[in-house]
Amino acid sequence: MLTRIDHVGIACRNLETAAAFYEATFGLAVVSRETNEEQGIREAMLAVADAPAGASYVQLLEPLGPDTPVGRFLERRGEGVHHVGYGVADIEAALAAIGATGVRLLDSRPRHGSMGASIAFLHPRDVGGVLTELVQSAVR
Amino acid sequence: MLTRIDHVGIACRNLETAAAFYEATFGLAVVSRETNEEQGIREAMLAVADAPAGASYVQLLEPLGPDTPVGRFLERRGEGVHHVGYGVADIEAALAAIGATGVRLLDSRPRHGSMGASIAFLHPRDVGGVLTELVQSAVR
Repeated sequence: MLTRIDHVGIACRNLETAAAFYEATFGLAVVSRETNEEQGIREAMLAVADAPAGASYVQLLEPLGPDTPVGRFLERRGEGVHHVGYGVADIEAALAAIGATGVRLLDSRPRHGSMGASIAFLHPRDVGGVLTELVQSAVR
Repeated sequence: MLTRIDHVGIACRNLETAAAFYEATFGLAVVSRETNEEQGIREAMLAVADAPAGASYVQLLEPLGPDTPVGRFLERRGEGVHHVGYGVADIEAALAAIGATGVRLLDSRPRHGSMGASIAFLHPRDVGGVLTELVQSAVR
């Protein structure tokens, strides 16, 4: 069902500082920047690899304010890994199959994610403490 | 420098329960089990994808006791993402380059990791709160 580790989502206090760090230290390059008002974040996607099954990214997330999911995460846990996103070929089928196992879906229907992808989150309490995202990449 | 997201390391209280969950829910398969006394863990590697640049894994980690790094992590944070491992082609060169930027190396020289890999950890305080591992896979 899972085709790849699509991305690791990392919460940071300052997106520009964090992106510059990943570029300078690890040689990654920012390939996309977006603001997602619905999720309350500004983000940068840095490409790690571009395999046939799809690329993998470091996704840096800066909250738009303290009263957002990532803002509350930073207040509670500090900077660090916020979630893990896995690629799927068919997100509606994956959600149906995973929901049928009893895992609670934070999104019962896909919504808009980074770079035109369709995404949905699973409840971290049902996935061993890991906020888990499914990602069906946009056709390019 | 980074060739792929090699793995996401996830701390869990019970390795068998967690591995069975990932197999049943996401269709992943355990491809390796190891005990690493030096790191104080039992682990299972579950393959997510097998791209030309190397596979990606979910690495489930159960501490061998409470007074181990992962044991203390569970006590402090609960189950969840413990670290992120990135593939590199030449770990000695990568450590030298990253160390030169001022990032503290928890391992100044590579040591033995999962499945015969050479690994080294970077200090999470210098990598935006993310315990970061470099992985040079074993030649197979």
